[in-house]
Amino acid sequence: MEVLYGLHPVEEAVRSGARRLDCVLLARERGDARLERLAGLCRDADVRVTLESRDQLTRLAHTDAHQGAVALVRERAFLTIEDLLAPQPIPNKIERNSEETQSQHRFFLALDGIEDPHNLGALLRSADGAGVDGVILPERRTAPVSATVAKTSAGASEHVRIARVTNLVRALEQMKQANVWVLGLDERGAPDYMDFDFRTDCVLVLGREGAGLHDLVKKTCDHLLRIPMAGRVSSLNVSVAGAVVMYEALRQRTHPAPAVPKPAAPPKPRKGLGS
Amino acid sequence: MEVLYGLHPVEEAVRSGARRLDCVLLARERGDARLERLAGLCRDADVRVTLESRDQLTRLAHTDAHQGAVALVRERAFLTIEDLLAPQPIPNKIERNSEETQSQHRFFLALDGIEDPHNLGALLRSADGAGVDGVILPERRTAPVSATVAKTSAGASEHVRIARVTNLVRALEQMKQANVWVLGLDERGAPDYMDFDFRTDCVLVLGREGAGLHDLVKKTCDHLLRIPMAGRVSSLNVSVAGAVVMYEALRQRTHPAPAVPKPAAPPKPRKGLGS
Repeated sequence: MEVLYGLHPVEEAVRSGARRLDCVLLARERGDARLERLAGLCRDADVRVTLESRDQLTRLAHTDAHQGAVALVRERAFLTIEDLLAPQPIPNKIERNSEETQSQHRFFLALDGIEDPHNLGALLRSADGAGVDGVILPERRTAPVSATVAKTSAGASEHVRIARVTNLVRALEQMKQANVWVLGLDERGAPDYMDFDFRTDCVLVLGREGAGLHDLVKKTCDHLLRIPMAGRVSSLNVSVAGAVVMYEALRQRTHPAPAVPKPAAPPKPRKGLGS
Repeated sequence: MEVLYGLHPVEEAVRSGARRLDCVLLARERGDARLERLAGLCRDADVRVTLESRDQLTRLAHTDAHQGAVALVRERAFLTIEDLLAPQPIPNKIERNSEETQSQHRFFLALDGIEDPHNLGALLRSADGAGVDGVILPERRTAPVSATVAKTSAGASEHVRIARVTNLVRALEQMKQANVWVLGLDERGAPDYMDFDFRTDCVLVLGREGAGLHDLVKKTCDHLLRIPMAGRVSSLNVSVAGAVVMYEALRQRTHPAPAVPKPAAPPKPRKGLGS
């Protein structure tokens, strides 16, 4: 049994239905419109609601940052690489906010040793925002998808499709065999991510803060991309770096350069533009 | 007197010379190559070094996350809006890593009520990375540029040009009068930031997590830009959102779309491309 807390994460868990919710516990006070809306949402979704004192919620959540909402959920079932690669990722794509942000190319995110739950949460939130088709997390040396992660991700951890793998290198090899390009992010990489053509199926691999990608993972990458650093600091925070590249991929896929005459043939995959 | 701690922030403070360093205190243990390099750096820069026990450093830094390095510095002197707008921002631009990331247009960042020191630190780090020409911080309702901020910014807070203002709206009006476009980031804004032409002098204004920009600040903006959200979550973390837009501005300025025939006339400023 796992505990989720915070208005957003609990609301998202109720909405998504992807998890077996055992029950939702709400603070007993009246007059909080957001808690009342959440109670209504639970009724509509047939989720059992119990009213508790704030102290009791704090004991369950092990923090007082629960905003009056706690959910008890069964262990999350993770996907496999095969699930991620399956042709129709129905649950996540159908109800997206905007038709415009759809793309015929898939974009995955793989995390190589992200142990800080705040970074993991922020990355899942950005992955949801950028319409990423799935996230690959290794079982070891990775923050668990905990209540803190759910909170930091503003609930995105409940929606984003996540595959958990025992061996990241093997998972990336599987991706390659499915014609997905493996792109590592590296301070000493080339080309700049801005020069890369993301209009192809690809997986972006992010490494540890400071130490970067593990050697074997780096060797598995088809390309190592770099984020240009204009000032004195040598790298961005990993969750920031990931979002910058995810959004550039989204931009290229949804906002082709205006005024460029469309080529007769489809764009070549795996082409670094090399300015 | 202010205390800085951590290898990166102390090293950056020594390198930048922008602050009056009173002295640097290093842990007494031998054999740590990074501490020895830092000691050498201090010698070269004529900064006084004292060796102390780790416990003493912990007492000074009020945390044990000092990595064996603490610096005592005089209060930071902030710039004014006039300083930021002065034609030659010499200290930051001259020694930039790469000629390529220079631009003839200026880009400023203004923060409206960012109270979380980790968000402020991450934003300063990204501002340094994206080559931002200056950051505007209101005196009130903003995290102070503390040791935590210096640490989270990986030392960028020592290098980035920061103006501190009593009234953000008035500061933005001053920017407007200097022909700098004021761009707010807002969930309900339009157009998408991807459709905006950043090849003009501009200042990006970021609001509070959750509540967004204050009303008066919002009214002062020439444009409200939006980040498209492809999934279910309605917004990104503010430090992530800021970086995504700062890097899009850098991309447009340094990587004009290839294969686009160059227009004879310079591009029009303030033109939302409106796909």
